[in-house]
Amino acid sequence: MPQRNYRDPLHNIISLDESLPDDRLIVDLIDCAEFQRLRRIKQLGLAMLTYQGAEHSRFTHSLGVMHLMTRALGLLSAQCKITSQARITGRAGALLHDLGHGPFSHVMEKVFNFHHEDWSRRIILDESTEVNQVLRAHDKTLPKQTGGLFDHSYKPDYIAQLVSSQLDCDRMDYLLRDSLMTGAKYGVYDLEWVLHTLRIDELNDRIYVEAKGLYAVEEYLHARYYMFRQVYFHRTLRSAEAVLVAALTRARHLMIDGKLNFYLGSAIEKMMAGSEVTTQEYLSLDDTDVTFFMKQWMDEPDPVLSDLCRRFVHRKLFKAADFVLSAEQAQALVDDARAGAEQEGFDPNYYVIVDRAADVPFYGYYSPAEADARKLIYVENPRGGISEISEVSEVVRAMRGYRIDRICYPVELSAVVTAALSKFDNAPS
Amino acid sequence: MPQRNYRDPLHNIISLDESLPDDRLIVDLIDCAEFQRLRRIKQLGLAMLTYQGAEHSRFTHSLGVMHLMTRALGLLSAQCKITSQARITGRAGALLHDLGHGPFSHVMEKVFNFHHEDWSRRIILDESTEVNQVLRAHDKTLPKQTGGLFDHSYKPDYIAQLVSSQLDCDRMDYLLRDSLMTGAKYGVYDLEWVLHTLRIDELNDRIYVEAKGLYAVEEYLHARYYMFRQVYFHRTLRSAEAVLVAALTRARHLMIDGKLNFYLGSAIEKMMAGSEVTTQEYLSLDDTDVTFFMKQWMDEPDPVLSDLCRRFVHRKLFKAADFVLSAEQAQALVDDARAGAEQEGFDPNYYVIVDRAADVPFYGYYSPAEADARKLIYVENPRGGISEISEVSEVVRAMRGYRIDRICYPVELSAVVTAALSKFDNAPS
Amino acid sequence: MPQRNYRDPLHNIISLDESLPDDRLIVDLIDCAEFQRLRRIKQLGLAMLTYQGAEHSRFTHSLGVMHLMTRALGLLSAQCKITSQARITGRAGALLHDLGHGPFSHVMEKVFNFHHEDWSRRIILDESTEVNQVLRAHDKTLPKQTGGLFDHSYKPDYIAQLVSSQLDCDRMDYLLRDSLMTGAKYGVYDLEWVLHTLRIDELNDRIYVEAKGLYAVEEYLHARYYMFRQVYFHRTLRSAEAVLVAALTRARHLMIDGKLNFYLGSAIEKMMAGSEVTTQEYLSLDDTDVTFFMKQWMDEPDPVLSDLCRRFVHRKLFKAADFVLSAEQAQALVDDARAGAEQEGFDPNYYVIVDRAADVPFYGYYSPAEADARKLIYVENPRGGISEISEVSEVVRAMRGYRIDRICYPVELSAVVTAALSKFDNAPS
Amino acid sequence: MPQRNYRDPLHNIISLDESLPDDRLIVDLIDCAEFQRLRRIKQLGLAMLTYQGAEHSRFTHSLGVMHLMTRALGLLSAQCKITSQARITGRAGALLHDLGHGPFSHVMEKVFNFHHEDWSRRIILDESTEVNQVLRAHDKTLPKQTGGLFDHSYKPDYIAQLVSSQLDCDRMDYLLRDSLMTGAKYGVYDLEWVLHTLRIDELNDRIYVEAKGLYAVEEYLHARYYMFRQVYFHRTLRSAEAVLVAALTRARHLMIDGKLNFYLGSAIEKMMAGSEVTTQEYLSLDDTDVTFFMKQWMDEPDPVLSDLCRRFVHRKLFKAADFVLSAEQAQALVDDARAGAEQEGFDPNYYVIVDRAADVPFYGYYSPAEADARKLIYVENPRGGISEISEVSEVVRAMRGYRIDRICYPVELSAVVTAALSKFDNAPS
Repeated sequence: MPQRNYRDPLHNIISLDESLPDDRLIVDLIDCAEFQRLRRIKQLGLAMLTYQGAEHSRFTHSLGVMHLMTRALGLLSAQCKITSQARITGRAGALLHDLGHGPFSHVMEKVFNFHHEDWSRRIILDESTEVNQVLRAHDKTLPKQTGGLFDHSYKPDYIAQLVSSQLDCDRMDYLLRDSLMTGAKYGVYDLEWVLHTLRIDELNDRIYVEAKGLYAVEEYLHARYYMFRQVYFHRTLRSAEAVLVAALTRARHLMIDGKLNFYLGSAIEKMMAGSEVTTQEYLSLDDTDVTFFMKQWMDEPDPVLSDLCRRFVHRKLFKAADFVLSAEQAQALVDDARAGAEQEGFDPNYYVIVDRAADVPFYGYYSPAEADARKLIYVENPRGGISEISEVSEVVRAMRGYRIDRICYPVELSAVVTAALSKFDNAPS
Repeated sequence: MPQRNYRDPLHNIISLDESLPDDRLIVDLIDCAEFQRLRRIKQLGLAMLTYQGAEHSRFTHSLGVMHLMTRALGLLSAQCKITSQARITGRAGALLHDLGHGPFSHVMEKVFNFHHEDWSRRIILDESTEVNQVLRAHDKTLPKQTGGLFDHSYKPDYIAQLVSSQLDCDRMDYLLRDSLMTGAKYGVYDLEWVLHTLRIDELNDRIYVEAKGLYAVEEYLHARYYMFRQVYFHRTLRSAEAVLVAALTRARHLMIDGKLNFYLGSAIEKMMAGSEVTTQEYLSLDDTDVTFFMKQWMDEPDPVLSDLCRRFVHRKLFKAADFVLSAEQAQALVDDARAGAEQEGFDPNYYVIVDRAADVPFYGYYSPAEADARKLIYVENPRGGISEISEVSEVVRAMRGYRIDRICYPVELSAVVTAALSKFDNAPS
Repeated sequence: MPQRNYRDPLHNIISLDESLPDDRLIVDLIDCAEFQRLRRIKQLGLAMLTYQGAEHSRFTHSLGVMHLMTRALGLLSAQCKITSQARITGRAGALLHDLGHGPFSHVMEKVFNFHHEDWSRRIILDESTEVNQVLRAHDKTLPKQTGGLFDHSYKPDYIAQLVSSQLDCDRMDYLLRDSLMTGAKYGVYDLEWVLHTLRIDELNDRIYVEAKGLYAVEEYLHARYYMFRQVYFHRTLRSAEAVLVAALTRARHLMIDGKLNFYLGSAIEKMMAGSEVTTQEYLSLDDTDVTFFMKQWMDEPDPVLSDLCRRFVHRKLFKAADFVLSAEQAQALVDDARAGAEQEGFDPNYYVIVDRAADVPFYGYYSPAEADARKLIYVENPRGGISEISEVSEVVRAMRGYRIDRICYPVELSAVVTAALSKFDNAPS
Repeated sequence: MPQRNYRDPLHNIISLDESLPDDRLIVDLIDCAEFQRLRRIKQLGLAMLTYQGAEHSRFTHSLGVMHLMTRALGLLSAQCKITSQARITGRAGALLHDLGHGPFSHVMEKVFNFHHEDWSRRIILDESTEVNQVLRAHDKTLPKQTGGLFDHSYKPDYIAQLVSSQLDCDRMDYLLRDSLMTGAKYGVYDLEWVLHTLRIDELNDRIYVEAKGLYAVEEYLHARYYMFRQVYFHRTLRSAEAVLVAALTRARHLMIDGKLNFYLGSAIEKMMAGSEVTTQEYLSLDDTDVTFFMKQWMDEPDPVLSDLCRRFVHRKLFKAADFVLSAEQAQALVDDARAGAEQEGFDPNYYVIVDRAADVPFYGYYSPAEADARKLIYVENPRGGISEISEVSEVVRAMRGYRIDRICYPVELSAVVTAALSKFDNAPS
């Protein structure tokens, strides 16, 4: 029995039996260059600058998602027939869902304006990639099927829901993993109970949770809520991203103006220039490139770029202050802070950065109003029917998001920002 | 009470109270550029290619060592007066002990022939570094004192033993941390019991362990033994290092011959050229640079270099076979394999690599014969005296190292190596 | 350094240094017969009939509460002077707070109508007990001081709050411990962060939590909420208590009528007869006696008593159905069920039992309206002042209790109860 | 899908699907009175007097053993056909293996001279028991088959080995569980790796472990070794057993002489009188009875009995001193101590107790010489064959048992015993 056993800090052993064709496919996908690349992309981007233990990669997380998918499908199969085609598509999709991430997971998306999900699909469908070839060798239709999970064109949809919805294997893994690695205990919930109470509603082609699992799902949503507030939207993390975004934006402008000394005829150059990149070019980029350039650019002659890079590399990050103001007030505040920054000799385009909770990729709140109905969470209600969870749970209804705005700035501008905030009776917090 | 709380996957909260001068010093040292650099050096080098979770950095580990040192000193202070000077020196030394590590922790030491401990001392003593300045600002003599821990010139020596000996805070942290992160459970031992049974033998200026802690120390040595065999000397990890060392060596030779296209006027160039580097140049290097160059060199014209880099980046590593032979037999085997490789068109200098257990930095065996007496482990014996542990414990005496030799080679040479081994009745394992 | 180290599944090592007078006192208190008795009283009463792992005793829990008290006082002492008298009183109180519990923790309180807190005070103040003698030997006033913690006559009150309030060391320990032992993960919260953010408001003599601890306290309250619903108010646990209460009540009536064959001239006899018991008599009772009598009474001639005891000993417990009805409807339902039971030959006084959430000792909801202001939870608000937590946290406001009523009955009466419930459109759940 | 989910502190969820006949049988067996009785027998007897957390019962452990058996059989089935008959026999045997334990697990065996394994078989085979009836209802031959596991008459023998051998599900569960509950970390080993490397050697009808599992089995044997020394043979635990054995023996002698006031016409009376007991009588006994009698006998007129019971109930246990002497010397020492005790007015038959490591039921050492070959541990050797583990592992060969003798005595006899020991140059330790 040739086995591939991956040891995992969260799931202990992730075991694949290479004598089974499906497990063999998963092993071959793991060995593809595009999947190995995920070792070089940190799961939580710059979070390790706040929670130093958060150094884990998308590779590790993706293995975990596949493992949870395998377990969920195994448990669900005891109550409902799931075709072997659906099973392997779901497992491949779970493994490959993050393939399209760029350096530091979400930072590049903001600067270069793309969505990693689109890249994940493109990499799977592009015949030049190893993953495409491996999928095709197993079953010609598999690249298209797997890609279909990401735009919900695949049927049955409950497989897609397990890969991507408000209660999917992706979130189930990352809440626990990020909690373990950050050392913050907020993301812990009762995974085993959630898995054991998952059910398939065949009539409506959706996943739901048995009545006795309601409390565990409420706890899972609490876990998300706290992880969002304490980790994913942490001030230091978000200010680190602000510095990195500012530096990349500055470098881009300098390059376009022909004033950047050091760069390469590489994918990053093309992306900065706004040119199209090929799949292979896109895949050549990972955290290493961005970190390497930030280190090199500390020596660029442009004082703004070198200053921003130094702050980033040596972790002298921006400060951040939260405020809750009307749209007009917020604009007035920002105008005020920008004017003050200019007076102090700081270019406000790079040194006064506004950040909004809703911009955070791991947005923490579950809201039935905002999402696609297929992605909501359904539970068995006391009458034996199936309802969207906020109809059943007062606790879920109470967990509402609210608008947090935030202003990021270098410590040298503390007086300026404090003065601006004080006009609106907001102390920096 | 201004607090700096670091959350840690292993120790939970590492709390520093900035109103206390000593804690304030530790905070300032953490914020130094040289310490922040450790975020970019993986604790276990290439182990994440075998145990994918092993992505943690020297930064995280070093905080943990400082934390254990603080705890150990707190517990020991209840039984013996330790001066405040000794306490802060010990804590600073624990924090900074790994400052001199190069990219991927140990790989560069082998290629460029240096010891990281020497660099740690040099960085602490060099007045151009931030850590030196911060130490001096606290107490002019502190750089010298702290540096003295690494060559055991500092007195009392028991402080140095807590930083660096066979039972030090460094190993106490890394066994548990590496165990947690790899997901291999072999490194777990009873840390709390070890800490609670540590004692100071003032007469002989050394650390020892109370009689009732003997079992916990035996277990700690077992943990080392298994971690060595299952993690630190894992075939895949060691073969990954072989590939990286081969690639760097090839690049070096190409550069000296003027045949390397892409490199920079940087520290790595100087090191490859064999020139002296300044402290700042040395510090500019971390994992990022090496990974970046490996990725770039995949496109070099030299077929050996580009092939080795491709194997490294896409994780198509060498295979490895263990053998137990006499020195002459081993030489004959290697000669045989090298000749076979040459015939198959592989340059044996880069494709047939010999690896020895004793070369592994985390050498797993405790041996009273080999080490400096100040670094051995002492325990209270049944008669109330203090003995070196192997005099008291049959279990420790039984844990002897033995010579493992290993040959690493690309999969294309499997037939060649199998044939060579078979002459000595050794099957590849 | 003579040490007493208790190993604990939750806190690992609880270390006491017998060379320190305060620790020596704690050791001596632990060794008292009254404290050793707590080994024979299960922390969660009959919960082990639902969560089989919940077999831990009040002894183990009480050690944990003392340990948390020691840690909390240590952390608080860094910011505020706490007298050594207050420290030892707090620690003794934390250790001894459960001394007055009777068999199966809360069951006897219901049958014999007393409060364990009153017995805890009485045992501490009664000069015939070993704990009283040990406390007095340390400091003549200590029994009175320690007793004063339980009726909040002790000053400073913040010490009493750490022993008994909505955020006390008692709850901090039991949520985590009960969670670990039951295997239900609902009670997990971030203990370390709560401890590290506790503060003393000296002006108002109360404990509060720093702003950055708000989320951890919210999570702690969620933990209570879920543990209440999933463990403390679990249907099987409550129905087991119903059976035990019914059996004890029956035995009492039989004894008074002279129809009970087997009993002893012991404390339990006096309590059943409604006579006063001495402190020593009260202390002679623990879980053993009740279990022993239940086993013996299986052979009593009275068919009701022997039947109830058999159900209890062999775990053939009652069923339970929840309902939400107006007071009149509830009364009508119960009357209906009782009439049906009678028709089926079951005495409704012993076979139709009504249970209410508010009767549960570990009542799960935090409600600012219901409690003594000194026992509420206070947090630093965004303006730097101190507020009661529900003023600051929407999440806490949303966690409201609601009225759950429940009817417990033997499986033989299922049809009767289902019919009764159906009149009110309530299915048994 | 009607599920029975048991939450477990060690294994998290133990899930049984009542729609499957095999799982249904297990559920029915759990609900039997004889299995429920195991809730009232502590797994580690009196160990909770040393490690206060060790309050778990045989019930909880037995569920865990059944769970591990189910998992092991599931993993082994992937490589080798195991009949459904063998599977259910193995699972039932794993669940029921401890049915025959008496009060405090092993103490009664010593006083009344029986083996719990014999009682386990008898309870399964006796047609009056609920477990017998449930087994028979499933399959008429099942009681005999299941009973056959305990005397190794069942075939295939590898099923019996999983229930009872040097590497069985019983030990796999209890090492981890006892480690968790005592808080001593010595029993932790890599369970998942052991389970994943178990194999069946069909030719020789035995269980073995793949080569890559060798280290995990070595670690498992180390775990046993340390648990034996630190927990199962702990001086306080063994001295508590000495006190209990002495008290029971005294009570027996008094009863036979007609001098015991309080006892019952119960099983314990018959056992004390040396009469045969029926299965039902045997089953009526558990920890409760013994504890209850110990509490009552504190008031007996016989000073020896009341004194011993007081020491037991209030945990004023005996002291214990280890010695290593020849058989003659040991006899001389004991004679000496007994004479001294008599002189001090203590009856040496109850106050001078000799204890030997080899008498401990969980004897910690793995010794190929002493055991039945079918119960030894087999591993794949480097040549691909299968060897008994000590032939392959030097580490295992080094873990030899040695003779520890011990003398237990009340603190009042300390001077006497110290004097006796000093003649042989043995200090009490």
